[in-house]
Amino acid sequence: MADATTKFLLHEDDIPTHWVNLTPDLPGAPLPHALHPGTKEPAGPDDLTPIFPMGLIMQEVSPEPEIEIPEEVRDAYKLWRPTPLHRARRLEQALDTPARIYYKYEGVSPAGSHKPNTAVPQAYENAKAGMKKLVTETGAGQWGSSLAFACSLFGLECEVFMVGSSYDQKPYRRSMIQTWGATVHRSPSELTEAGKSQASHPTGSLASRSRRRSRSRRRIRTPTTRSGRCSTTCCCTSRSSARRRSRRWRWQATNPNVVIACVGGGSNFAGLAFPFARRVLRGEAKTRFVAAEPAACPTLTRGVYRYDFGDTVGLTPLMPMYTLGHDFVPPPMHAGGLRYHGDAPLVCALVKAGVVEARAYRQNETFEAAVKFSRTEGIIPAPEAAHAIRAAIQEADEAKEAGDERVILFNLSGHGHFDLAAYDAYLAGTLEDPEFSEQDMEDALARLPEAPAIA
Amino acid sequence: MADATTKFLLHEDDIPTHWVNLTPDLPGAPLPHALHPGTKEPAGPDDLTPIFPMGLIMQEVSPEPEIEIPEEVRDAYKLWRPTPLHRARRLEQALDTPARIYYKYEGVSPAGSHKPNTAVPQAYENAKAGMKKLVTETGAGQWGSSLAFACSLFGLECEVFMVGSSYDQKPYRRSMIQTWGATVHRSPSELTEAGKSQASHPTGSLASRSRRRSRSRRRIRTPTTRSGRCSTTCCCTSRSSARRRSRRWRWQATNPNVVIACVGGGSNFAGLAFPFARRVLRGEAKTRFVAAEPAACPTLTRGVYRYDFGDTVGLTPLMPMYTLGHDFVPPPMHAGGLRYHGDAPLVCALVKAGVVEARAYRQNETFEAAVKFSRTEGIIPAPEAAHAIRAAIQEADEAKEAGDERVILFNLSGHGHFDLAAYDAYLAGTLEDPEFSEQDMEDALARLPEAPAIA
Repeated sequence: MADATTKFLLHEDDIPTHWVNLTPDLPGAPLPHALHPGTKEPAGPDDLTPIFPMGLIMQEVSPEPEIEIPEEVRDAYKLWRPTPLHRARRLEQALDTPARIYYKYEGVSPAGSHKPNTAVPQAYENAKAGMKKLVTETGAGQWGSSLAFACSLFGLECEVFMVGSSYDQKPYRRSMIQTWGATVHRSPSELTEAGKSQASHPTGSLASRSRRRSRSRRRIRTPTTRSGRCSTTCCCTSRSSARRRSRRWRWQATNPNVVIACVGGGSNFAGLAFPFARRVLRGEAKTRFVAAEPAACPTLTRGVYRYDFGDTVGLTPLMPMYTLGHDFVPPPMHAGGLRYHGDAPLVCALVKAGVVEARAYRQNETFEAAVKFSRTEGIIPAPEAAHAIRAAIQEADEAKEAGDERVILFNLSGHGHFDLAAYDAYLAGTLEDPEFSEQDMEDALARLPEAPAIA
Repeated sequence: MADATTKFLLHEDDIPTHWVNLTPDLPGAPLPHALHPGTKEPAGPDDLTPIFPMGLIMQEVSPEPEIEIPEEVRDAYKLWRPTPLHRARRLEQALDTPARIYYKYEGVSPAGSHKPNTAVPQAYENAKAGMKKLVTETGAGQWGSSLAFACSLFGLECEVFMVGSSYDQKPYRRSMIQTWGATVHRSPSELTEAGKSQASHPTGSLASRSRRRSRSRRRIRTPTTRSGRCSTTCCCTSRSSARRRSRRWRWQATNPNVVIACVGGGSNFAGLAFPFARRVLRGEAKTRFVAAEPAACPTLTRGVYRYDFGDTVGLTPLMPMYTLGHDFVPPPMHAGGLRYHGDAPLVCALVKAGVVEARAYRQNETFEAAVKFSRTEGIIPAPEAAHAIRAAIQEADEAKEAGDERVILFNLSGHGHFDLAAYDAYLAGTLEDPEFSEQDMEDALARLPEAPAIA
């Protein structure tokens, strides 16, 4: 990272040809298998065929450290990648820090976040397998809009079930989904069994989380007759998508002291961190890693490491992860993408091994960081990304205290164009600042499903 | 423009060092002077000192073909520039055209459009001249948010008067302005004399247009005591900003057959077209130019070429331009940035000379083009930019008809993240499709102010 440069832009030929799979490099015992939700025996590739197309299964179970990105996916990536890497010089000056702060900006994608990086290959593999339509779930709309965009590229129909409160309060994400040709339903709906069972929930949060984690994997083969069906399950949450978002640039030769990203399910963190983490696991570097999460949904900092379902209604395989209980409903907060009860097994394994440090931040302090960032670097960040900014500023302040010139790299995972009402609330001093209480923790522990101990 | 490449990204060292000033290259007689609104004599630099800082005046009256961009401005540009140039391969395929379509995407700027390109130097020159605060007007909020962003970079206070209807209906642009630290008022307001005189107008459109064109040039020297004042006038509309947005990339060596941009006041069009236009004016190329405007506000296609005020209330110098009358109020439409009654004198001179062809499009056909673009290229465009897309598709269709491989280059001037309600209306089939009637034209001619003939 040459000192004189502010913004790094690569040529499209530099879009990576492979995804990083960290599985073979994990320390200690191999990553525990997911368990079949009925038998509680290890789930194998056969258990996945009703859910995934073969292309995704092969990625899911691969022991290879690198997985080739299909040419068609790389072609689609060219619509917005390579994304820029910025030196945050104006933020550094405002903080009066000797640290050097870099951020990778994912908000330039059509959907405005990192999520198309995994939505595009998921749509591609389904189209290649002959699927005609994908059905998915979305919370605040980031994932639903990303999948709608991805489906539009491969001629797939797309149907999105959107959390009721977001459907009502965030009409613009709904509009994006429709502009890309997909249909949207308010969730829970009367169109699915899962929806009917959740219909009494006022916001739809419960159903939302379950469907959201399943993402595009619940698909149907005869869309004209079963277009409302949304019942199959998912597996391994963002483990595979984590693999799909890595090795982004040539600056791996550089050596940041600390790499920071926010964590909801883990794919955003993994996309930035895994190529660097592999170097650490192989003894080639000493980079630290910080996973920034909300204090109101502190899965990595306060959750327990054990088997739990990936979805709220308990239909998915059991996965080894830090969890607050699969039916945990976080309080309302604006970083909708960070409201997941667990985390990707690969990310959890890195926390468990002490490779990644998790930190939880309160909502108001993340918005304070976001406004400081907006007024120095220009970009108005998504509330999710604001957690990473908060951690980066903490590191920069510590660098000032210690008088060191540490190099900080964080992922600015998306823009905040659809979150401006939250900025209004912060600036007006009326933003809620929810936390996770001892009672919440006790409740979470009481709700955990029976499952074998992690070996 | 190498055939294999989809997206062109330059290094920040490629941000231009100079702006293009087309004045010395104009064909025929020199561009007519602006006239003092009282004496109707040519307005000189002295008439501008109450309005502009000297740095901007020197650009405004310069006879030089290139004007150096201050180092501080280039540094600020690095926050988002160089902006990407895309080959629209998926759109070409969808249109089944032999044409090659390229677009420059300005939506990656923090404010989401091309406008920071001129907001930043205007803020810089004012800060350099010792100003502490800028006061401006905005329609839908694009300009107000761009100036708020620019002021945040140079430590200037900023106060924005926003058209009442937008203030009520587009709260997100208002939120952006506040996030960057500026204050916003609903316009017309009781805070200014101009506002009081317009208070009976239901939407505030009249006051809005006058203030909007004056942009940051109305500034005050003692903000603490006069922070509500908004009374001085502007000059030459976007003429100087037109100069400030050009010579963007090295691909000038390439030779597009047609260059297309939407036109509101002219700065977006000028930014893309002027470097190419200079080559045409010097006999070095044969590029065609298309200025795309809304059929409901057809200044270039149906306006008359004569002197008129730049603002609605008649406070600015009289400028030579195509105009529909300075107090013309276009019908409601979603391309808020294209609702100006006139156009920049330099752009008008090029239309008058036959160098630029103007075309007017109806609102629904521009949204049809925008949706087609979203579903192929991903990005959801601003309604203003949709006019350029519509023209580009027309050119591509003509290329198919003629069987030629023409190279089409257009400016995608911004994203549509704050315009999604208009997409909803289009998709629901309820979008209005206003036009400009013969009666509108008669009314416009009757309203024109007395002024000398253009020499």
